[in-house]
Amino acid sequence: MSTIELEKLKTELEKELFHHVLPFWEKYSIDQQNGGYYNCLDKNGNIYDTNKYMWLHGRQVWMFSKLYNTLEKKEKWLTIATHGFEFLKKFAITENNRVYFSLNEKGEPVYMQRKIFSECFYVMAVAEYAKAIRSDELKEQSRQMFQSVLEMSQKPELINRPVYKGEPDFQNLAVPMIILNLIEEVYQHDFHLVRNMVDECIAKVKMHVVNSTVYENVLTNGELHDSSAGRLLNPGHAIEAGWFMKHWAKRLEDKDLNALSNTMITSSLDQGWDQEHGGIFYFLDAKGFSPTQLEWDRKLWWPHCEALYATLLIYAETKSQEDWKRFQMIKDYTLAHFPDHENGEWYGYLDREGKVSQHFKGGPYKGCFHVPRALFLCVELLKSLI
Amino acid sequence: MSTIELEKLKTELEKELFHHVLPFWEKYSIDQQNGGYYNCLDKNGNIYDTNKYMWLHGRQVWMFSKLYNTLEKKEKWLTIATHGFEFLKKFAITENNRVYFSLNEKGEPVYMQRKIFSECFYVMAVAEYAKAIRSDELKEQSRQMFQSVLEMSQKPELINRPVYKGEPDFQNLAVPMIILNLIEEVYQHDFHLVRNMVDECIAKVKMHVVNSTVYENVLTNGELHDSSAGRLLNPGHAIEAGWFMKHWAKRLEDKDLNALSNTMITSSLDQGWDQEHGGIFYFLDAKGFSPTQLEWDRKLWWPHCEALYATLLIYAETKSQEDWKRFQMIKDYTLAHFPDHENGEWYGYLDREGKVSQHFKGGPYKGCFHVPRALFLCVELLKSLI
Repeated sequence: MSTIELEKLKTELEKELFHHVLPFWEKYSIDQQNGGYYNCLDKNGNIYDTNKYMWLHGRQVWMFSKLYNTLEKKEKWLTIATHGFEFLKKFAITENNRVYFSLNEKGEPVYMQRKIFSECFYVMAVAEYAKAIRSDELKEQSRQMFQSVLEMSQKPELINRPVYKGEPDFQNLAVPMIILNLIEEVYQHDFHLVRNMVDECIAKVKMHVVNSTVYENVLTNGELHDSSAGRLLNPGHAIEAGWFMKHWAKRLEDKDLNALSNTMITSSLDQGWDQEHGGIFYFLDAKGFSPTQLEWDRKLWWPHCEALYATLLIYAETKSQEDWKRFQMIKDYTLAHFPDHENGEWYGYLDREGKVSQHFKGGPYKGCFHVPRALFLCVELLKSLI
Repeated sequence: MSTIELEKLKTELEKELFHHVLPFWEKYSIDQQNGGYYNCLDKNGNIYDTNKYMWLHGRQVWMFSKLYNTLEKKEKWLTIATHGFEFLKKFAITENNRVYFSLNEKGEPVYMQRKIFSECFYVMAVAEYAKAIRSDELKEQSRQMFQSVLEMSQKPELINRPVYKGEPDFQNLAVPMIILNLIEEVYQHDFHLVRNMVDECIAKVKMHVVNSTVYENVLTNGELHDSSAGRLLNPGHAIEAGWFMKHWAKRLEDKDLNALSNTMITSSLDQGWDQEHGGIFYFLDAKGFSPTQLEWDRKLWWPHCEALYATLLIYAETKSQEDWKRFQMIKDYTLAHFPDHENGEWYGYLDREGKVSQHFKGGPYKGCFHVPRALFLCVELLKSLI
């Protein structure tokens, strides 16, 4: 593509990010009275539920800190990050370093998952916020907490999750993937300090790619398991894992890993694309059975966000016409279906045909994260291309 | 309606039950090698996952025992019930009377919920199977286990469910509802032995009906809670609760309760009916926000099964044209969309427009229960009407 075209694209995505997306969260998500962020925001920003979700708090603190650290030292961004960080620190974390999934408006606990993701997003928030306020103490804290999350990922009893004899010995793609993402955030250029863990997680992610198909769950011995869980495909997740791996391939100068990452992205997109109505399916079954997840054919915002950045990242490398076309296909579908320029932010959930099925902008699993992260990453990449 | 029309309807529903539905489970669900039932059965009966689900085991044992006890002493039905009962007894229950949610093919535990429903369906199975084999010992056992379930429903620590300070003090409709259903099954004509519990549960169910709307969750002080959970409507569940209440109203000769039950059924149907595409929505929000459940607009088989029987039950009482029309509307939609006469059984999951979205016949939450129970109840009711 010509520089002019790339400039035009950059301007379009910047407008989306700074004009349509960020203002929505800046305007509607802040709870000035109790601290923290409101997450359940309807189409026009109205609060339809006052519960506060800690995945989304960690992610929003991370996002505003990242913008502050990378783009511009805007006081508003730092203030918003601080607002969420203080709430997290005060209410979200227990003395055992566990982090609640949700709190009520005032910060009292509502629910704790038997998973490690609240903790992971907390660590991401602390690491990026530490940079924003230039605190070595917080930076050290994020590294200590990362080690605690690692331990939780290895000992299910720490997160109160019983292990039963009949469970297949599954490894879930999300775990090595998020650990790699955390290392990227927490250790940055010091990743050699946890190099063994980097190699171990990359080896684990590779186990999920079998005959160019990315399986969400594989057995820890590397075999596939012929069951609904063992055949589950989550194309958006596989594409996200793909660009995480591309970042690591670049950092480690590992060409084979880079080639594998490209396969993860392009083949997941080919398999996951709905030939009839467009868009990326949420779940599929590798052998073509119906996934048991009722929402399997919904088109969610976040797989499209991941695909937007992942396909642009491949194009940035190859500059090939084919890769540009793949990016364009994603971009056209995504920008035609998800954004709401009247009220700001993007819709999150479409039915198979592409009609909005849930008209809220924020919910228990959708916050200020995937949309701005993807737009931010694309814009930064375009800057480097131009 | 004329007796001829009712006869015709009875024949149609009997054919559905005996010709299209039961043979599917008789033929495909039995695991002759390991015992128990396969639950994950594709369109044509092929097994797509070998995990065994204990909600569905309890329900299938109950269903075949019920048919044997009520309709005809068919050896085949008793054999199938025995087959599931033996597996349940051997593998599903722990020494603390907890029942696993799922087991693998061989009966080793895979997952245990922090809910009481596996236990409830186990109790139902034991109670009805006890009648089938005329065992006073088993009957007594089902009553003891019922008491243990009651205790679990009151003490969340027994089912390993933590209670957090910020949780609203919600009462979920499912709990008093299923306890009343269990009393109906376990105590039958002896329900006076647990009469206090009957009255308490009926009082609790009544709390969920506010201005003719049935709320899935209300606060234990009877107030509504203005949140996604507090505004959640589950019309199929409300309709099922309605016919449970109608049974109790008849047994207790309570006219007010009967009138309330009719309201629960008809108003949930009016609110839950999709005016655009037909069928009953899975979830709604009382104030019209988008439910956070991604599957809110799916048309599931079981709400339609519940509505089929509930509306016929109202017609049986009123004999009014209006109530007949309501039943006909449900019957027309249901029989046009769910049954698969080529392969047997009904599809379970349609998209909003009524197209099959999941082509399996059995899954982790769909087994040999709602379809045959509704058809059986309708046929028995029609016999009494004719």
